[in-house]
Order: sequence, then C-alpha cells, then structure tokens
Amino acid sequence: MARVMNFGAGPGTLPLAALERAQEDLLDFDGTGMGICEHSHRGKAYSALHAEIKALLTSLLGLDESWEVLLLQGGASAQFAQIPMNFLGPEARADYVLTGTWGEHALAEARRMVGGRARVAGTSGTGPGAVAHLGAGYTRVVRPEEVTVDPGASYVHCTSNETVHGVQFGHVPGRWFDAGAVPVVCDVSSDFLAAPTDLSPFSLVYAGAQKNLGPSGLVVVLVRKDFLARAVTHLPNIFSYAVQAKNDSLYNTPATLSVYLARNVLSWVGDLGGLPAMEARNHGKATTLYAAIDRAAEFYRAPVEKTSRSVMNAVFRLPTEALENAFVAAAEKEGMFGLKGHRSVGGIRVSMYNAVEPAWISALAAFMDDFARKAG
Amino acid sequence: MARVMNFGAGPGTLPLAALERAQEDLLDFDGTGMGICEHSHRGKAYSALHAEIKALLTSLLGLDESWEVLLLQGGASAQFAQIPMNFLGPEARADYVLTGTWGEHALAEARRMVGGRARVAGTSGTGPGAVAHLGAGYTRVVRPEEVTVDPGASYVHCTSNETVHGVQFGHVPGRWFDAGAVPVVCDVSSDFLAAPTDLSPFSLVYAGAQKNLGPSGLVVVLVRKDFLARAVTHLPNIFSYAVQAKNDSLYNTPATLSVYLARNVLSWVGDLGGLPAMEARNHGKATTLYAAIDRAAEFYRAPVEKTSRSVMNAVFRLPTEALENAFVAAAEKEGMFGLKGHRSVGGIRVSMYNAVEPAWISALAAFMDDFARKAG
Repeated sequence: MARVMNFGAGPGTLPLAALERAQEDLLDFDGTGMGICEHSHRGKAYSALHAEIKALLTSLLGLDESWEVLLLQGGASAQFAQIPMNFLGPEARADYVLTGTWGEHALAEARRMVGGRARVAGTSGTGPGAVAHLGAGYTRVVRPEEVTVDPGASYVHCTSNETVHGVQFGHVPGRWFDAGAVPVVCDVSSDFLAAPTDLSPFSLVYAGAQKNLGPSGLVVVLVRKDFLARAVTHLPNIFSYAVQAKNDSLYNTPATLSVYLARNVLSWVGDLGGLPAMEARNHGKATTLYAAIDRAAEFYRAPVEKTSRSVMNAVFRLPTEALENAFVAAAEKEGMFGLKGHRSVGGIRVSMYNAVEPAWISALAAFMDDFARKAG
Repeated sequence: MARVMNFGAGPGTLPLAALERAQEDLLDFDGTGMGICEHSHRGKAYSALHAEIKALLTSLLGLDESWEVLLLQGGASAQFAQIPMNFLGPEARADYVLTGTWGEHALAEARRMVGGRARVAGTSGTGPGAVAHLGAGYTRVVRPEEVTVDPGASYVHCTSNETVHGVQFGHVPGRWFDAGAVPVVCDVSSDFLAAPTDLSPFSLVYAGAQKNLGPSGLVVVLVRKDFLARAVTHLPNIFSYAVQAKNDSLYNTPATLSVYLARNVLSWVGDLGGLPAMEARNHGKATTLYAAIDRAAEFYRAPVEKTSRSVMNAVFRLPTEALENAFVAAAEKEGMFGLKGHRSVGGIRVSMYNAVEPAWISALAAFMDDFARKAG
C-alpha cells in the first residue's frame, strides 16, 4: 500500500528517507556484512555510530562542554522515576509545574517515591487536585505569576509541550516562570528539535524518541555537568545518570537499532537545514492548520488559548461525538490517519511533528474546509 | 558486502529471514501504509502484533495460565535492579548463586540497594570475594552441595548460561541446586529459546533480547502470578512488574520496533520446528565446535569442565596472546567475525546462538584445524 498521511501523536511518522536508508543497513550496515542490530555495542561500527549521533545532537542543538548527552532506554516515563531517584536525597524536595497530563504523570511518579516532598509549584489545570483529576481542563500554559518555586527545591520540573491537551510554552524558556536559582528540568519529548531552542535556562532536558527523533525504545537525556554533580550516589547503577555519563551511555547494551534510526532522522534534519529549517516548516504547517480551524470556529472548537497553542499537536472538538467519528472515518478514506484525540479527552488531535509533510497539512486543511461546509 | 559469519556474543546475529521480512515492514507494515515504528502502540496493528508475540512465546515455551509474559525495556541489566526493587521489602533477604560475571553483576546491583541482605548462596568462582574479583576463575557451574539457600530468602537468583565464562547449567533446572520452597529467579538471557526448558522450578525468568530473541532494547520477563502477588507495592510504577502486568506491558510506550523484530525471530523459530529443532541445531553446532577444540587440546585450551560447557558460548585460549590475535585476524580474512573473548578475560569466544548457521560452525572448525596445524 502507498504510505498514508500519518498524524498520530506518537509513535509518530518518521522521515521516509530515514526509513529507506535503514532497509539496506538492517542486513548490511555500512558494508560490514552485518546488520546494524547484529553489531556488538562495543565494536568499531557501532562505536562510530554512537559518536556520530552524539555529534549530531551536539551540533544541531549547539551544545557546549557543560552538557552530557545520554542515550538511554525506557522512554520519558522511565525518566519520571529516574529524575527523583537521581536528584532527591532523603530530605530533598522538588517542584512541579503542571500544564497537562504528562506533567501530572511525572509528578505522580515522584510522589510515589517521596510523597509530599514533590509539590505543585503552579498549574494551569482547573481540577481541584491535578493528579486526582487527570486531564482536567488545561487550556493554556501557566502564567509566570501563577508559579511559586520553592527556593529550597532540588529542581523544578516542567513540560515544554503537552501532547494530550495541545498546550505548548513559548519560544523563550527564560520567560516561562521565575525559577530563581533552582535547576529547571524539562520534559521536551514532543517538541524536541522542532525549532532552535535556548537551553540556557535548563539543567536537564529529556526526550522520548517516538515523536521527533525516532522509534520508541530510546530516550535522550541532556544534563549539565554541574547539575549532575549534585546527584545522589546511592541508587542502582543502571538508573544512575552519573554512571551512564561515566560510561558514555554504554554501561549496559543500548537500544542500538533505535539509536541507529534516530541517527538517520537527525541526518535528515541536518540535510533539510537543521533546526531553523524545522522551525520554518513547523510554523508553516501550524499556521495552515489553525487557520482551517479558525475559518470554521463555530464548527471546529479549539479550546486552547491562542498564545498557548501547540505547534506540534492541535486539538479541537466538533459539535458532537458522532460528527467527530464521522470526521475520523471520512479522513481515513482520504488516506489521513491518527486523528483521534487521546482517549482521556476525546475529540480530534492533529500531530504535526517534524516528519509530517507540509503537503499533508494542506490536504487536511482542505478536507476540513470541505467537511465543515458539508456537515456544518 | 555479502553477509559475514557473525560469532559475536551479543548483540548477536539474527536470522536473515527475520531481517528481510522487516525491510518492507519498516515502510509499510502489513499493508497499513505506515512503517512498524510509526504505528501507535495503542492502535489495531500494533495491538495485534503485541498479542501475537505473547502467543508465540506462550506456545513455544508451553506456558500455562500461571505465567505473566512481560515485554519491557532496559535489558537484563535493568532487571538486576528491578528484581530487588519488586521483591525485597525493608527487611527481606535474597540469595544469589554465582557461576560467572553476569550473576556477579546482578548481585552487585542488589547489594547497592540492600547491602548484605543480598547474600551469596553458592559460587563456583575461585576469587576470595566474587564481586570484588570480577571474572575470577569460573570454570564450571556450582555443584548442588555447594549451595545453601536461606529458607527465609525472598528469592534465590541464578544465571542459566554465563556468556563471558562459557559456563552453562544442565538441562534439568530442578537438579541445579536445592532451593527448598524459595522462589527461583533466573537470568536466561543467553540461552533463552535454545532448547525445550522445564520452567516448573522457576518463579521468574528474564531474557535480554540481543542473544536469541532480537535487537537490544527489549527484555522479556516471565513471572508466575503467585510470585508476582508477593511483590512490594511501593516502587515507581514504571519499574513495577505488577503495574506492567496489569497494563499488558503497555503502561508506557514499549520498544515497538524491537518487539516487532523479536516477533519475526520467534516466527522463524516456529518455522524451523520450535525449541526441539533449536536444541538439535544447537547441539550439533556445539558438538562440532568442541570436537575441533578437543582435537587440538594442547593448542586450544578450553578451561571449562566438560559437563559445564556452554552450548551457546565456547571459550578457549591459545598458547600466547600473539597467537590469539593472529587467530582472530586470520578468521576475519575468511569472513568470520566476533571471535574475541570478553575484554575482562581475553582469549577466544565462539557464540553459537540460535541464528548462527551450522555451516558457519563447520567452516570455523575446519579453519581451527588448519590454524592449529600451521601454528601449533
């Protein structure tokens, strides 16, 4: 079958060039006579790949020597646990800024470990207790004045883009809220590499691969060396960022095939012009899509405040659930897939990750115009 | 380049049929118009695959309803930590039976968490303190009379096959040692699916994929429900076997591409005749290889006692390191790769995992005869 237009929220679509490149390398990686996943993670071929992907990340993101680049497993969900494991000693506290479901998950995991020592520093949710009311009404990011960071916290955690609610912080992380001298930890899974990003306000960022980076099974953790120096030392080696950093992420066997595919994706990002090109591409797609929503604002009701709209995930409702189901079914007939909203909130969600082609968004916008005219 | 003969210890060679099948599915999985790693882990296509791989494992291993089949991330090394996290409450103790490096690693990780409450119940190592002397002289498995299991231990941990030392327990796990009523936990990473196995003595077995199952980034954990019921509940959700079991291993996004490839490998095992066919295939290879060693026993010195010889990893030394290097170099010229012993012990190691072709072992045996004649 021809490849369809995939607007899924993740695992999401990947660049065709990255996948095609992998077809041969699965059987014979770089002329070695072994497929990429058959190479020892300590051999020459994989070592070169491991160095290459770190160099690509370093160069695309403009990382300096203050950062460690870790290639780990378990996705962002494992980091929800590993961050408190690494940075919360027996008496230490942490702050969480909530702008959607994934921040709530991160907080809930921390609370399982340290209880009330993990605190909500600010939330844009409308539920009475964010974690108890998963998915409660996040229609914007927090305003700076809604956040009070505990100066004694070991870190403050936030989420740059919330995929379920379609809520994204703006371009300048330094203006999100005032963290004072508290290290800022950010889950950037769903807008990693989507635009040039000023990483200077952050001490640690992490990204599950399955949005803009590659297949699931890989998570990139970027951590500043001075923050890493504050990590506790009494935890299992396998979950210790310091141990992984000391071993160049080769303390155990990494997910070599996922690393390989992410290398192909990063290469493709570079070929297209790097992060400035991604920003232009993504801005164009989001402009087209939100314009289609706003042209039929009575029919496509987008709950998110305009200044908090996500460039990666646009969410909206139709007048009835029956119309939403009809929308999804009609779109699939046109070769457009992955449009159902997250099961916790319903509605429609359009994910516009880096690899989503601008032409797909144009086709979807035209479809939306047509569907609204016929059904509205 | 033509595919070479890959005797690497892991990530190891995979069946060509499994890799070829993946080439098309990377771009268009089962005619869906999306590549396998672009599918949502909650969509129809991946759900069917997830069910299929569990069914294949269940059928190949003859698992009954008493077992949970978990598909997790982080490899066996993550289980070294997760097993004590799940099964050792504040006062609980665990026993470890050591027959090589990997068991030592498992013990060391447990000790980081619970100190002396993780105890050596028996060892075939000759070093004064196994963990302090990594790789110390394991030339056989333990004898039953060398193991004393603490009846109050929450579990006793062992390793069915030690890849670094080439030491493997025999076919009948019930005879390895007397565990009494203590649940037996076994790292089966490197001989998983190599032969029909009586799982009745075990309460939990786990296998990192990158030997007999697929690419790294996936670990299979088989755990009995009655043992799982004893797990502690206060640990991060992401590392909880009970949480993963309750969520059918979909608590978080699984490593979908690794799961997919493992499905292809399991299919291939089935096509060849299942585990009895693997046993015959592996027995034939090991017989051929050890015969080549024994024909030149003065030249190829195999340290492991014959009854403990591994069917998966044969280790031997040549008279000098210079000859070992010459052996590896000459073998590579003949298209034979991955023969260097583990960096901690040196020498030569021949891994003969399921996917290693019998013809490769025959070719290697002929090469060994020739090399010994010329150099010996």
